[in-house]
Amino acid sequence: MNVTLRGRVQSCRTVAFDRARHAVLLVEQRLLPHEFKIVATKNFRATAGAIRDMTVRGAGAIGATAAYGLAQGALAFPGRDLPKFRRHMEIVYQTLKSARPTAVDPVNAMNGVRAVMRVGRSVAEHQALALAAAEEFANENVRNCEAIGRHGAKLIRNGMKILTHCNAGWLAFVDVGSATAPLYAAQAQGRTFHVFCDETRPRSQGASLTAWELAQQKISHQVIADNAAGHLMQRGEIDLVIVGSDRTLGRTGDVANKIGTYTKAVLAKRHRIPFYVAIPLSTMDWNLKRGLDIPIEERDASEVLGAWGTISTPHSTLRNPQSARRAYVRVANPTSGARNPGFDVTPPELITGIITPMGIFKPGELWEQRRRLGHTD
Amino acid sequence: MNVTLRGRVQSCRTVAFDRARHAVLLVEQRLLPHEFKIVATKNFRATAGAIRDMTVRGAGAIGATAAYGLAQGALAFPGRDLPKFRRHMEIVYQTLKSARPTAVDPVNAMNGVRAVMRVGRSVAEHQALALAAAEEFANENVRNCEAIGRHGAKLIRNGMKILTHCNAGWLAFVDVGSATAPLYAAQAQGRTFHVFCDETRPRSQGASLTAWELAQQKISHQVIADNAAGHLMQRGEIDLVIVGSDRTLGRTGDVANKIGTYTKAVLAKRHRIPFYVAIPLSTMDWNLKRGLDIPIEERDASEVLGAWGTISTPHSTLRNPQSARRAYVRVANPTSGARNPGFDVTPPELITGIITPMGIFKPGELWEQRRRLGHTD
Repeated sequence: MNVTLRGRVQSCRTVAFDRARHAVLLVEQRLLPHEFKIVATKNFRATAGAIRDMTVRGAGAIGATAAYGLAQGALAFPGRDLPKFRRHMEIVYQTLKSARPTAVDPVNAMNGVRAVMRVGRSVAEHQALALAAAEEFANENVRNCEAIGRHGAKLIRNGMKILTHCNAGWLAFVDVGSATAPLYAAQAQGRTFHVFCDETRPRSQGASLTAWELAQQKISHQVIADNAAGHLMQRGEIDLVIVGSDRTLGRTGDVANKIGTYTKAVLAKRHRIPFYVAIPLSTMDWNLKRGLDIPIEERDASEVLGAWGTISTPHSTLRNPQSARRAYVRVANPTSGARNPGFDVTPPELITGIITPMGIFKPGELWEQRRRLGHTD
Repeated sequence: MNVTLRGRVQSCRTVAFDRARHAVLLVEQRLLPHEFKIVATKNFRATAGAIRDMTVRGAGAIGATAAYGLAQGALAFPGRDLPKFRRHMEIVYQTLKSARPTAVDPVNAMNGVRAVMRVGRSVAEHQALALAAAEEFANENVRNCEAIGRHGAKLIRNGMKILTHCNAGWLAFVDVGSATAPLYAAQAQGRTFHVFCDETRPRSQGASLTAWELAQQKISHQVIADNAAGHLMQRGEIDLVIVGSDRTLGRTGDVANKIGTYTKAVLAKRHRIPFYVAIPLSTMDWNLKRGLDIPIEERDASEVLGAWGTISTPHSTLRNPQSARRAYVRVANPTSGARNPGFDVTPPELITGIITPMGIFKPGELWEQRRRLGHTD
């Protein structure tokens, strides 16, 4: 997507590969929204480090990063000895896999690259195939998001007010994003609308990342406290809700997404506001049979008990964000603890439709749709 | 309520009067939860200043502060000249009234004190009556909260998990509080239970004030992000919700309270969890006919775009909070704005009952109850 740097608009992907330097190029997400910087990881260990330390985050983005990291590791192998190369690649694979042990996207992405590599007969062929497969993985991620945008944009009419939760934007993918894709597509088609970004406590990805993305694309938006969406719906100020998903059950249509998503779905149902979930098919889980069986990660209490930000005054304009100091402030009573579930599960009866690269489906149609694509159990 | 200072437990009111020094004693709420300090305002102008700068906040607390401030102003008058005294008192009244122009509690409290003063025949009698009336106002505030506690405690059973929103605790009143009163009464009756405090963005009164109060009273509790209540309800982890109210419509039972209250009521209804509102009758509005006609204050965007807290590390224990530095951190994208409605309106169909000093009523019974008390229109 577009980023404005020193007054100039330039196009940028969250994850890319520099073929000249064999480096993975990543948007350094820990500095956002206060600073935009692209970092280059020069070898597969540094790439694994960037996944581990959350320089890059978001399912699609870490998948592509791992795929490029695998290609990067292949390209770094000096000799022609295929058995040695295979042992080297196992180390590369395990290093990248262990960077974020619970995430499935890096593993799926790397398995895809490895499957392509298998047709190679020499080290050089393996190297070329690895890079081609990683590029194809990244490009497919972008094409899927663009397709989500094409289908989802049909839901957006001029003058609409749209609620989003958390960040399922281009920063979480290689480009375009899932929940943001319909917004960008509708904007490209000349429509104007306004977006309310839930701040999305406790990690505030809506206030920091989604608001930053929309500001870069010059889409009209405002941040709201997570508490405010119900009031805005009651006053008729929200026409449509679009969120992303971390895991969607193909059998039932249950959607696991950032904590607070379920609450917005309940509110939307009460106010008869359409509630859509935008997903690339990589987040589908075709096995699990019950939404409430999705494991919900309990995260660190410190996230709820305080906030990370840039030390400021309430009305300063932060003209020089590079010099601003990032800090954690403790907001809560120092002797109190917290519960911090990271995700929640929204049942299918609250979901108007699921926007996929193949079209928009009712939650219950996903399974049938899969059958049509030739899958059997 | 009890406060533990340097290991010693002592009893304390949010607002009190020091008869020896003619000073109003106030819990300095801007330092909480990181420091507990009682400040003394030595004259009515300083008392008005404490209302203005939010040293004291909360409807009941600022009402009592204004009542004491009026008595303080009366006691400071040196002569015996009644017309001069009356002119002086008009200045005292206007000074205290203008400290928080939109609040009704200081005005109601001071009007009550003035009505009692009218029977006085000398300056000395006026002074004595003013102090007696202010003390009575404060004591009645406490008795009302205690009565809310007695009625509300019947709803609390051993082992229950209770959700609260914002702070309607003793810090918002002279003592005991409204939404917290049933908790304190149930604890005094030997029951054990667990409280989830919504952090209550954007001003985080739940995380800072309610959590501090409950910690002082040694009531088991945890802070949660406002996003988490829906998930906890879905998993059967919340049995009861009790909130306060800034304005309750006697005709309809609509409840205006801190932003996010409506959302919790919608969630509670879906999960068939009892949702109670605890109020002293001073927050009743017997005139307004429609909940959606209650004006909703739009507050400063900076509240949503960042957070106030004490600079810390995520896992420090803040052993020496007095030396900790309070700061505002900007969390949101620096070029984004915010919407910040301060309150929302919960309609009566979502409210199980309203806990008043006179008993627990259905929202629709309030009007009838008022008739029984002899009110007519």
